Amino acid sequence: MSDQAKAYTKLVEHLKGLGLLRSCASVLGWDEQTNLPPKGAEHRANQLALLAGLSHDRATDPVIGELLDQLADPNSVGGDQTAAYANVRNAKRAYDRSVKLPKKLVEELSRTTTLSQHAWVEARQKKDFTLFHPWLEKIVTLKREEADALGSETGVKYDALIEDYEPGATAAQIQSVFAPLREALVELVSAIKESDKKPDISILERKYPVETQKAFSIEAATAIGFDFQAGRLDVAAHPFCSGFGPGDCRLTTRYDEHHFPGAFFGTLHEAGHGIYEQGLNDNDFGLATGEACSLGIHESQSRMWENLVGRSRAFWDHFYGKAQQAFPDAIGDVHIDDFYSAVNDVRPSWIRVEADEVTYNLHIMLRFQLEQALLCGDLNAADVPAVWNETFTEFFGMTPSDDSIGCLQDVHWSAGLIGYFPTYSLGNMYASQFFEKAQDDLGDLNAMFAKGEFMPLKEWLNNNIHIHGRRYDAPQLVEVVTGKPLTAEPLLKHLRGKFGAVYGL
Amino acid sequence: MSDQAKAYTKLVEHLKGLGLLRSCASVLGWDEQTNLPPKGAEHRANQLALLAGLSHDRATDPVIGELLDQLADPNSVGGDQTAAYANVRNAKRAYDRSVKLPKKLVEELSRTTTLSQHAWVEARQKKDFTLFHPWLEKIVTLKREEADALGSETGVKYDALIEDYEPGATAAQIQSVFAPLREALVELVSAIKESDKKPDISILERKYPVETQKAFSIEAATAIGFDFQAGRLDVAAHPFCSGFGPGDCRLTTRYDEHHFPGAFFGTLHEAGHGIYEQGLNDNDFGLATGEACSLGIHESQSRMWENLVGRSRAFWDHFYGKAQQAFPDAIGDVHIDDFYSAVNDVRPSWIRVEADEVTYNLHIMLRFQLEQALLCGDLNAADVPAVWNETFTEFFGMTPSDDSIGCLQDVHWSAGLIGYFPTYSLGNMYASQFFEKAQDDLGDLNAMFAKGEFMPLKEWLNNNIHIHGRRYDAPQLVEVVTGKPLTAEPLLKHLRGKFGAVYGL
Repeated sequence: MSDQAKAYTKLVEHLKGLGLLRSCASVLGWDEQTNLPPKGAEHRANQLALLAGLSHDRATDPVIGELLDQLADPNSVGGDQTAAYANVRNAKRAYDRSVKLPKKLVEELSRTTTLSQHAWVEARQKKDFTLFHPWLEKIVTLKREEADALGSETGVKYDALIEDYEPGATAAQIQSVFAPLREALVELVSAIKESDKKPDISILERKYPVETQKAFSIEAATAIGFDFQAGRLDVAAHPFCSGFGPGDCRLTTRYDEHHFPGAFFGTLHEAGHGIYEQGLNDNDFGLATGEACSLGIHESQSRMWENLVGRSRAFWDHFYGKAQQAFPDAIGDVHIDDFYSAVNDVRPSWIRVEADEVTYNLHIMLRFQLEQALLCGDLNAADVPAVWNETFTEFFGMTPSDDSIGCLQDVHWSAGLIGYFPTYSLGNMYASQFFEKAQDDLGDLNAMFAKGEFMPLKEWLNNNIHIHGRRYDAPQLVEVVTGKPLTAEPLLKHLRGKFGAVYGL
Repeated sequence: MSDQAKAYTKLVEHLKGLGLLRSCASVLGWDEQTNLPPKGAEHRANQLALLAGLSHDRATDPVIGELLDQLADPNSVGGDQTAAYANVRNAKRAYDRSVKLPKKLVEELSRTTTLSQHAWVEARQKKDFTLFHPWLEKIVTLKREEADALGSETGVKYDALIEDYEPGATAAQIQSVFAPLREALVELVSAIKESDKKPDISILERKYPVETQKAFSIEAATAIGFDFQAGRLDVAAHPFCSGFGPGDCRLTTRYDEHHFPGAFFGTLHEAGHGIYEQGLNDNDFGLATGEACSLGIHESQSRMWENLVGRSRAFWDHFYGKAQQAFPDAIGDVHIDDFYSAVNDVRPSWIRVEADEVTYNLHIMLRFQLEQALLCGDLNAADVPAVWNETFTEFFGMTPSDDSIGCLQDVHWSAGLIGYFPTYSLGNMYASQFFEKAQDDLGDLNAMFAKGEFMPLKEWLNNNIHIHGRRYDAPQLVEVVTGKPLTAEPLLKHLRGKFGAVYGL
């Protein structure tokens, strides 16, 4: 074996060990959200800080730096188009970032965000921002410190952080995509508002027994291809998906007996993430080629299954009979047309994760605006509720009555995830662009859905997207898959087409 | 600060870090038993092996050796009667053991026992020993290797292993306590067999809805003092208790709709362990003074709450009305006398964890005999079913119809826990001796139980046993608490008194 081959083998071993160690922290993180008894929060924070510190030690081990130096020339691993070089390139990016962060900051961030999430849960429950305020302040301070340590080419703090979620993206680029999208969306929302058609959403607020919701959600998630032999569905305050590694991916949701769409579409959404995780190459666990490409691409998978599939007419042509059998008291007498309209009702609403496909992106833009201001210092943590409500009113024409349906609704900031939100809207755009291409390749997807055939799309995603892992950066992946750079056109075309029909525009 | 004080502070820091790291593995171990999707077993085994290796690295860090050398003189920490010296002494014992074990063996044992437990679950379900046989063989080989690496003063392999569970005990000592106990028990069983009184145990096999069992078990566990704000109760194939650390202790049980005692007394048993864990000094987490004394002492707590409290007449004087309300269809028409007799029915039975108080110890003695033979090489893994059945027939006068109610019933060997079983019977003896002393100190405990007052006993245990952690070794603790060395007399007195009354002997 050549020295370079030996160096690559050693690097792979090191990265896999690091991935394995990090996946231990994922288990503790998931358990924290799903099972932790209240008095265990402090101990859990200590456990996670310890693991974060140990992972940081491994991630910054000078041995990695030396191995990466030996492999600096792409030809040492067969050229810059190889999977091996993708692993080297990504490892270098991660290593260069990690060594900039002091271990103390990494541990402090881990400890703080663990405890802060418990404070957030309580603040949200009690609708009391003051319980969360000191934590948010501390987190923003730490994230600013992190951004300064990392640095960015643009000199913008926010760009230093977004790199963790959407490598290569910048706030300015995102803004330049968001601005015209926002304009088009506002126009569409306004046209919908003028329409005479008003779906009756009260049918979704009838009684849907929780156990039946759970069984029905699991049935649908299984049908679209999530493998419950390699995963689970549990309850958490905020729905999420956590892939621990080969054979183990956990979904969470939350049930409201009087609100059907929350848990159902939430589960489809998380199952979409889960199908991506389950579609990664198990043998490459710990390497870039066995890892999701970016959060934006991750969201493209979840939003596709949730919306382009789950909220399609064809999906309900297949599933509505089953739904009526499962919930006879709620929708036994409801016509599929009315149900379909109700789950596609477009109107300003409080909660992002339950928002319709059109207004959803406005929720994202609001958060994107606020978190940039928080990070650059234009907005103080203390002023978040007031500024949230003011901006919300500007965007949606209505004002939250309390913070639990306003600035306290999302877990992200309490978890230190600043810079994460824009990936949701990027995901919506990626999703539509991928979906168009899948349709080109596979033929009439809706005709398949109407027959309950979801495997062709699932396998297309496996073979065209999941298989690559992080081999390409997101912008490059979009071109590899669709032959075009990212554009909002497919999303707008989809929204105009679908809601034009629903609202007779 | 003196050099010695500095060394002690450093030692404490090191030990706490090690405890914290080990507690991460506890979370993964618990999750493995309660939540793991089938396809995640391999990855989980890799995670646990990694953590076992990391813990081993820390446990054998030469720095600990140096610190312990600096603190070798008890006077360096205030004398041999101090809590600090107890921590040093226990740390030295643990360090001396750890450095004898090769890291590779530690990782291999972790990986093997993780995977093996899944094989055991399947083998037990399918009543097919051949599925478990290769794993048992591998485990026995590894445990023999471990015993050889550790060595023991007696030169007996089994004694090297028992040190992990009951420090200072040997197989010969245990045998010398077990022999007369067995004789007395066989005599008592035989007298009971002659009795005309035959409790009607069919009333315990009526329909007890699982959800109600769960609620009722939680009510009882709460009443005896388990804090569910600092713990949970979940379902697992084999009931256990795992204390992760301050504020987080997990109990598991398993429900059978047609067998009331299993989950109920099982939960009281695990809650007894949990109350011990919750009673440890949180500030000393990671140190001997914040750790349970031994498994025998741990079992004394669980068996006390399960049997001396939970199967007492006084307990049911308080709880029976509630039980009748919870399960009206099953026992609405059953007199308390009949119920009390049924839950104290003594007869040969297949399953250890559900055995009555009298025959239980015979189940232990059988396992003690077999695992000694396995370890010294007198018994091959392949012959375990045949020898189990033969010995069982000798002990109980009946032969298991399949291995799921025979040699496959317990998780222990699949988890590598060889040398653990005798601690259950030691626990029974400790329990009766402690209980007698508590009664001396507190007055009529049964009168308290009958009024639903369990806190006096719980607090007595907190203040007399839990508070010491591992400050004393078990034999010493018994003397400190009761003023006498361990003897089987209190257990035999309890059994003869109680079952003499139940069976009119």
